[in-house]
Amino acid sequence: MEEAGLDAYIISKSPNVYYFTGTISGGKLILTRDDPPVLLTSRLNMVASLQASDPRKIGFDDISLSLYNDLKEKIPNATLMEAPEIVREMRMIKDSEEIELMRRAGALADSGMEAIRDCIGEGVRENEVAAEAAYAMRKQGADALAFPFIVVSGPRSAYPHGGVTERKIRKGEFVTIDMGASFREYKSDITRTFIVGTPIERQRDIYETVLQTNMVALDLIRKGETGFDVHMVAAKLIEDAGYGEHFIHDLGHGVGLEVHEGPNLGKTSKDTLRKGMVVTDEPGIYIHGFGGVRIEDTVLVTDSAPERLTRYAKDLDAMRV
Amino acid sequence: MEEAGLDAYIISKSPNVYYFTGTISGGKLILTRDDPPVLLTSRLNMVASLQASDPRKIGFDDISLSLYNDLKEKIPNATLMEAPEIVREMRMIKDSEEIELMRRAGALADSGMEAIRDCIGEGVRENEVAAEAAYAMRKQGADALAFPFIVVSGPRSAYPHGGVTERKIRKGEFVTIDMGASFREYKSDITRTFIVGTPIERQRDIYETVLQTNMVALDLIRKGETGFDVHMVAAKLIEDAGYGEHFIHDLGHGVGLEVHEGPNLGKTSKDTLRKGMVVTDEPGIYIHGFGGVRIEDTVLVTDSAPERLTRYAKDLDAMRV
Repeated sequence: MEEAGLDAYIISKSPNVYYFTGTISGGKLILTRDDPPVLLTSRLNMVASLQASDPRKIGFDDISLSLYNDLKEKIPNATLMEAPEIVREMRMIKDSEEIELMRRAGALADSGMEAIRDCIGEGVRENEVAAEAAYAMRKQGADALAFPFIVVSGPRSAYPHGGVTERKIRKGEFVTIDMGASFREYKSDITRTFIVGTPIERQRDIYETVLQTNMVALDLIRKGETGFDVHMVAAKLIEDAGYGEHFIHDLGHGVGLEVHEGPNLGKTSKDTLRKGMVVTDEPGIYIHGFGGVRIEDTVLVTDSAPERLTRYAKDLDAMRV
Repeated sequence: MEEAGLDAYIISKSPNVYYFTGTISGGKLILTRDDPPVLLTSRLNMVASLQASDPRKIGFDDISLSLYNDLKEKIPNATLMEAPEIVREMRMIKDSEEIELMRRAGALADSGMEAIRDCIGEGVRENEVAAEAAYAMRKQGADALAFPFIVVSGPRSAYPHGGVTERKIRKGEFVTIDMGASFREYKSDITRTFIVGTPIERQRDIYETVLQTNMVALDLIRKGETGFDVHMVAAKLIEDAGYGEHFIHDLGHGVGLEVHEGPNLGKTSKDTLRKGMVVTDEPGIYIHGFGGVRIEDTVLVTDSAPERLTRYAKDLDAMRV
């Protein structure tokens, strides 16, 4: 707050409130320079508490228009500014306790993928695959899914965010599963593409290109590298293999209390990797009408070699069912 | 828009965008008086599209401070106003197609509750109960859970929003499960409190009070009744039984594409029930250190008698495991 010249800072996004308080109950956290922080659930109390400290400059992680207008009226001398980066910066670096929870979340995702391998096949429906994986993760201690399942089979595997349907999986198809576990609010994120039966040449070429890209990028997830550079190396590999226009998203994103948080690995990224960051490495190739492949792991930036928090097998032989 | 005097209306909340477009992909829906609606994903395009129609008054279902400031600068003559009630009103009344999906979502929740009855008991962990119910619902066609599970056992049953832990259920305890299914984006919401073994007198008294309240309120969920009145009748019954201070939330809320939407059944409600509305009926009693009971169904307002969309048994004998 001192660095940003703020007299008060209001934290209202629930993962941010959880980060500082350990509670998932509603409420906004009010920080002022001199008084102890308070967690308030009532708008009235919040405004009164701010008025009392007579702040000149108030920062927010997030603010609704109605609260903005309310404060403009009740504390007319204060400047109000969005400053979400303050908490984003703090949350990007995980301490040892957070890393331990994220290792658990990663292992849970692996066990979900194992359950998928056991059930997936010709004639099985996408929603049945999701059911088995969710069941396995919850039975082993996940409090929840990190985010809604993506199970996309056949031509649907060309949709990176295609959700889950009741479609039956057929022989020869790609099936991409993107999922994660939540363990004590910390998330994991993993994607694997299975292939039902024997891949044809084009499927093999796409798969090997994505896998190769995933492995090269993994090795670059080290302190001092930039999110921009890591993404560009991956994009170049896919482009050189002839699939440049089919890699349509960023290489990765931070993971923690939210499944998408800082830092970003993409072509607009301004982030530099630092020890304690956790990011995804998820190149993909999507061909409309044919299908797609994405391979994703959650990875911890360490002092030396990257540590995979999701460790499920990913070579093509392991993905054949 | 004409009634509200709006020249343009921007829909950005994703359930609202889905309501009008049937797509879950990102993007904002831009409505102007003369041109066809457009779905845009880029801020730049959106601002340009609005500038072109030169609106005097622009409404929003929701607006971020940064978009607000952007539009203030780029379209300085326009008045910007939050007007979420326009879509809220439309979404409150479900048509026959929506009702059919909500019946499916309700039946899925019932099958989840049946799976819980089969697994719950002494020594079973809360997360295992959640695993079984989620599995059953997904296997039978749910695309997702309507919201994160609540499985609160023993003293934790006094917390209406206690989430799920790895706690083992013990003999003699209340176990409250609050959950729902999502079927093609439409949600259901059900709560039952089970009791492991034979209830003691105080447990029986609390359970019967909540059940009686749930049944009386159910019969009031008819067109023409107000959300305020239905809540107050329920609150009075609980108060007369001596538990007034332990009923700490509203009686109910609307359900549809979101698990919490209009109308509201509570003491600040200004809503009147109309045919096609879907609401919850969920009285509860929560006693710190002892435990709690909540019984909830999702209910459709019809031309005549209320129709329960969740129909799982709720008499005390049925809840003993």
